[in-house]
Amino acid sequence: MDTLSEPVTATPTYADRDRDLDLRWWAAANYLTVAQIYLKANPLVRDALMPGDIKPRLLGHWGTSPGLSMIYTLLNRLIRDTGADYIYVTGPGHGGPALLANVYLEGTYSEVYPDISQGLDGLTALVRQFSTPGGVPSHVSVQMPGSIHEGGELGYALAHAAGAAFDHPDLTVACVVGDGEAETGPLAGSWKIPAFLNPRRDGAVLPILHLNGYKISGPTVLGRADDADVIALLAAQGWDPVVVAGDHPATVFTDLQRELAAAHARIRAIQQQAREPGAVAAAGTLRWPAIILRTPKGWTGPDVVDGVQIEGTFRAHQVPLSKVRENPEHLRLLERWLHSYQPETLFDNDGRLVPELAALAPDGDKRMSASPYANGGRLLHDLDVPALQRYALPVETPGVSSHENTQPLGQLLRDVYTASTRAQDGGGNFRLFCPDETASNRLAAVFEVTDRCLQAPVLATDDHLSPDGRVMEVLSEHLCEGWLEGYLLAGGHGMFATYEAFAMVSASMLIQHTKWLQHAADLPWREPVASLNVLLTSTCWRNDHNGFSHQGPGLIDTAIPLAPGVVRIWLPADANTTLSIADHCLRSRDHVNLIVVDKQPHLQYLTMDEATAHCAAGASVWDWAGTETASPERREEPDVILAAAGDTPTLEILAAAQLLRNWVPYLRVRVVNVVDLMALLPADDHPHGFNEQAFEDMFTRDTDVVFAFHGYPRAVHELLHGRVHPGRFHVRGFNEQGTTTTPFDMVVLNRMSRYHLVLEALRRSRRVPEKGLDLARHCEQMLARHHDYIRENFEDLPEVRNWTWTP
Amino acid sequence: MDTLSEPVTATPTYADRDRDLDLRWWAAANYLTVAQIYLKANPLVRDALMPGDIKPRLLGHWGTSPGLSMIYTLLNRLIRDTGADYIYVTGPGHGGPALLANVYLEGTYSEVYPDISQGLDGLTALVRQFSTPGGVPSHVSVQMPGSIHEGGELGYALAHAAGAAFDHPDLTVACVVGDGEAETGPLAGSWKIPAFLNPRRDGAVLPILHLNGYKISGPTVLGRADDADVIALLAAQGWDPVVVAGDHPATVFTDLQRELAAAHARIRAIQQQAREPGAVAAAGTLRWPAIILRTPKGWTGPDVVDGVQIEGTFRAHQVPLSKVRENPEHLRLLERWLHSYQPETLFDNDGRLVPELAALAPDGDKRMSASPYANGGRLLHDLDVPALQRYALPVETPGVSSHENTQPLGQLLRDVYTASTRAQDGGGNFRLFCPDETASNRLAAVFEVTDRCLQAPVLATDDHLSPDGRVMEVLSEHLCEGWLEGYLLAGGHGMFATYEAFAMVSASMLIQHTKWLQHAADLPWREPVASLNVLLTSTCWRNDHNGFSHQGPGLIDTAIPLAPGVVRIWLPADANTTLSIADHCLRSRDHVNLIVVDKQPHLQYLTMDEATAHCAAGASVWDWAGTETASPERREEPDVILAAAGDTPTLEILAAAQLLRNWVPYLRVRVVNVVDLMALLPADDHPHGFNEQAFEDMFTRDTDVVFAFHGYPRAVHELLHGRVHPGRFHVRGFNEQGTTTTPFDMVVLNRMSRYHLVLEALRRSRRVPEKGLDLARHCEQMLARHHDYIRENFEDLPEVRNWTWTP
Repeated sequence: MDTLSEPVTATPTYADRDRDLDLRWWAAANYLTVAQIYLKANPLVRDALMPGDIKPRLLGHWGTSPGLSMIYTLLNRLIRDTGADYIYVTGPGHGGPALLANVYLEGTYSEVYPDISQGLDGLTALVRQFSTPGGVPSHVSVQMPGSIHEGGELGYALAHAAGAAFDHPDLTVACVVGDGEAETGPLAGSWKIPAFLNPRRDGAVLPILHLNGYKISGPTVLGRADDADVIALLAAQGWDPVVVAGDHPATVFTDLQRELAAAHARIRAIQQQAREPGAVAAAGTLRWPAIILRTPKGWTGPDVVDGVQIEGTFRAHQVPLSKVRENPEHLRLLERWLHSYQPETLFDNDGRLVPELAALAPDGDKRMSASPYANGGRLLHDLDVPALQRYALPVETPGVSSHENTQPLGQLLRDVYTASTRAQDGGGNFRLFCPDETASNRLAAVFEVTDRCLQAPVLATDDHLSPDGRVMEVLSEHLCEGWLEGYLLAGGHGMFATYEAFAMVSASMLIQHTKWLQHAADLPWREPVASLNVLLTSTCWRNDHNGFSHQGPGLIDTAIPLAPGVVRIWLPADANTTLSIADHCLRSRDHVNLIVVDKQPHLQYLTMDEATAHCAAGASVWDWAGTETASPERREEPDVILAAAGDTPTLEILAAAQLLRNWVPYLRVRVVNVVDLMALLPADDHPHGFNEQAFEDMFTRDTDVVFAFHGYPRAVHELLHGRVHPGRFHVRGFNEQGTTTTPFDMVVLNRMSRYHLVLEALRRSRRVPEKGLDLARHCEQMLARHHDYIRENFEDLPEVRNWTWTP
Repeated sequence: MDTLSEPVTATPTYADRDRDLDLRWWAAANYLTVAQIYLKANPLVRDALMPGDIKPRLLGHWGTSPGLSMIYTLLNRLIRDTGADYIYVTGPGHGGPALLANVYLEGTYSEVYPDISQGLDGLTALVRQFSTPGGVPSHVSVQMPGSIHEGGELGYALAHAAGAAFDHPDLTVACVVGDGEAETGPLAGSWKIPAFLNPRRDGAVLPILHLNGYKISGPTVLGRADDADVIALLAAQGWDPVVVAGDHPATVFTDLQRELAAAHARIRAIQQQAREPGAVAAAGTLRWPAIILRTPKGWTGPDVVDGVQIEGTFRAHQVPLSKVRENPEHLRLLERWLHSYQPETLFDNDGRLVPELAALAPDGDKRMSASPYANGGRLLHDLDVPALQRYALPVETPGVSSHENTQPLGQLLRDVYTASTRAQDGGGNFRLFCPDETASNRLAAVFEVTDRCLQAPVLATDDHLSPDGRVMEVLSEHLCEGWLEGYLLAGGHGMFATYEAFAMVSASMLIQHTKWLQHAADLPWREPVASLNVLLTSTCWRNDHNGFSHQGPGLIDTAIPLAPGVVRIWLPADANTTLSIADHCLRSRDHVNLIVVDKQPHLQYLTMDEATAHCAAGASVWDWAGTETASPERREEPDVILAAAGDTPTLEILAAAQLLRNWVPYLRVRVVNVVDLMALLPADDHPHGFNEQAFEDMFTRDTDVVFAFHGYPRAVHELLHGRVHPGRFHVRGFNEQGTTTTPFDMVVLNRMSRYHLVLEALRRSRRVPEKGLDLARHCEQMLARHHDYIRENFEDLPEVRNWTWTP
């Protein structure tokens, strides 16, 4: 590949005076980092340090902190020099006290949390609150102004950074990647950003790979690799890395300042060239700047303690001096360590940062901690979601015509793309993320208005591919989910569509994002962001062509126990309910919406109006499908209730209802459809939970319910605890039986077929219908016929394949 | 880095005659691949192809298959030339029909599945069974002889390959990585094998990165990258890759044969040098061979169909000719395609592979499909697990002394290491895998006999690090889990220890491995393998120092719905129960054992003998902790039952029991401890499930149960469905409330503290004790005191911190 021939702007000079100021800011940040970890009083050690000043539990991570603060310091200078917009993604999120120190020093923290004011009282409050009960967590977390990235589970820093950069042409996301995190798979797979980042319309990501050599107790692979190999690793993936290394602060500051300035100039040069009118996309030929930074772990901390080397080793990872309250020698070392930063020269009499240092912080929203890009709700514009009627499928008679449930959704998303691009003046604030199945998921209508995104030359054999494409297909659930999370937290809208079974690949990320939103809800200064919408549309029941490894509805079980204020699980039965749910999800805020609906053709049941009402209710009695109306005692207790949640379960329940109606028409059967799974939870446990009356109106108090469920059956039992007589619910669902077989054989294998449901209903019905035995025999015969037929014909019985509802 | 200076053995000549034979084997494999996808009869197209010969559902993946078969063909030649042991890990596992074709051609398939015999009948059965109901799945799967890797979820091919190579010095694992899979995070993170593979004691991994340019519908990042970048990417991570590319079969065969032979010679040279007596480990200086192979997607298949280019594009991914039964033109194209391989020259009159081709297969167990390395149970030796008594903690009085529950386990594992190394003549068949927390998890005793493994120079600041170390620490849950899976399936034993919350990172891998074991149990030819033991020892309740992102017990919810024949969930309450459970798990076969126990100091309750009996039972009444004995009506119905599962829940339940005993001693309280969570499931649903009588003996029929649970409360409700009166179980557990706070504050936040449990017990008790209101007031007061105290002191109330059981 060629690199851009644009001349890079000459590096601005870095005067000694500036560097000394920066070193003092850094000293202040390091000082406050140590103070937070250790102190609960005497925050500027103006009195001799006493055991009573020390917290009883010493928590926090020192090792990575000085490096993080150095980068923060120099980015601040860069921002002031250039006026550019930067945010800071901290991969080593355990360096929470370092970020907190910088955010406090630049004033944002006191603006957001007035109790932690500038001055001595505020300093005391600052150090007291860190990692203490009722205080703030030890990581870079949602409570940290300027953060869009929780420091905890490692691997997603670069993915979040890229997501935030998409569609923000003026933003650069500085992303620190620790060498521990760099060992994870998701991070290793994240370096391919240059293949997807469009310099014309997107912002930039500036990775800073911070190698300090050790994890908790062992060395890291990259930390111990040669510079040449680390450089080659990044260079092979579209970067042009430089190495900054050392342990002499002034030298490292000088070197890093120069390289940051050069990187910034290079980013701007790339962007300017790409944004010139008529510029041809330099697809695949760019090399973006990146920095490899090697500094000692626990830099400026205790060198040797109790005769053991600390600085520069894994022993500096967390708290280098332990038992400080009990050990006078350690107390003395701590005091000396704190004084080494000369706090008396950094803070004035009142405990405020001295003016010449305070002046180093960028202004207002230019501060990374105050950037609206890191509080994306401030940038959020409502999506223009068109009226659904134009995509609605006509349904004259329920259960007669077939259609792919996701195909109209594709049309809706197409027009959402168009409206978003128009509203954003040619940019956009909506993207679809998907491993590589947008078309396979029947969402191909989006390709009428946009393409798949790849920064590479387009070949004749490619289908809807372009550097300007807005459909993000990458065969990595981690990248899809991580990019979308970053995109949402920086103010965008989107959807992640993937295989149901493989959604478990990024389940842990969904959990972490849910935790983020759960705690964000408690922070009034965090503006609401668009919901994380996960569409699972190659589901266990119709992955019969792919087989057992592709069959797993476990993400439902993962999501159920998470914050009820955040999580919603939707199981639409047909295309119009899918539209209604998608509309709701695209408009919602601060939720994690799981939408599970199959892409294969299914029978259609509800008109758009009916679907809207059904989705708003969360669950409804489908009168047209039951036989209560045929009985003179309508709305008396039914003899048995058939319930379904999900598309395939709905089909089987309706087929079962029809069998019952045909064979034992005098049986009072009620048919219930659940689209909002959380409706089953008690109202105290979830905002969508039906109250007792509504639940009993639907399920009565004691009628047995035969429940066909999309996922694992016991997930429904889990939800029903607390309901009246939960033992009367007899749930069939995916029971971990599968292989490459026919669609109907899948429901047979899992004992959720119409025939199994009828047999269960007959067994559970309040009245034993006379002809029940004949029907039971019929069901057994059909199951036997099915077994023989598919082995002979490799497809389902015609009466099953062609079954439709007869009104 | 320097490369080895050893001369590489001269490449053996590849005579034209040999190449032509190989091309004909390849034609046979390609032929059978197409035949499996399309045909249900007429398997050698000896009659004109008729619509009735075609399957009604066309399933399978053609695109990757010819490349997989070419590699298979040439590996066979290499094996015959060298006598070496190879197995084949197929990342693009959708190429199932290709693997099946080769495995059939070399005879193994008929040996394992006699119904699929050699000859015309067998061929008919072979093509009929593929992807049909009652037949075989379409992927490379557990049913495939020679496979240790399910083709489904992508990302783990190299991890599995490395796991299989560990401790098998004579084995080379040829691992094909598709360019789709190469896009995933876990695969991107897997290239670092050279940093962990020891040429002295381990076998080799030969990666073959197979670039055919496309995923399902879009290009791949590496498929579209320059050769130079792909080479640099691998070279930076310890490989020395060569490129083989082309679309002319004879040329590509010649090139690939040469490079495979050179790679083999290079591997042997590396190993010989490392294994010479007195050889110094060339740690970090090796470059292992690797091959980058570029061939067209759907090679040798239809070039253009309906005017659209197929070969070499994403359109060749699955079934290049659709609707063959209905479309006569497509039928004609299929017939021509099948005939293009000249099956009449490949199979004799009886439908058997002609002798000169059959002779190309390696002999017996040298066939990759028959290798014992891919049926690891054949190589499995029992672990020598020492008697537990020597590690047991003395417990004279329950609940008085404190100890880290995992520390004695570390001693046990230390001696398992020693015994395994001795039994394996200096090698070993046991390894511990862990992100980087072996010491932090209190398992540091293992470092008395072994080290952390890294193929890099050791520095003075390192702690227990060596290229020969047998503790595999890598900051990647995917690698830990994937390495262990490969290690187990190739005949080893091991354990994966990780943070409970971050176990969700690799949850999907655990699901896939469970599915593998579930289906393996149906295959008598698959010998049992050692269980997958997952130890979660930094748990939600004591990650209070790390905070909310580190707190999540969701893996329990993930595991519960999986195959009951495979999954076990263990919640030991103290060190001796942990030892007993670990002993059971290390001896077990074909299970996935989840062991959840915290590493922090906890009270100790049971002697070793008591622990063994308790674990064997799965759950017991702890008479010493209840007040039934104090009541004259012992073994009458208790007034209330307190139950616990997990260490922290046990502590809180016992503290609650003591409060009840002290304040309302006449209340009949029973205390139950559950160590085997699956005991709660009905006996019909899990082999460990208590039968009705045993369950009612423990929990009675209708006494209310206050249940403190380690994980999410509704997981217990899920298990209890089907039990008598499940609504009487009142479960407290982790309720997604957390932050950086004190241990006791964690149970308070989640309303599972002793005081909450007492209040619940009083509310639920059959009898309302007179002094109950006083006790309730005490509990409320203690909760209020706690709230104030921790905010002032940053640590728990002394009476909570120092609480012990009073007999």
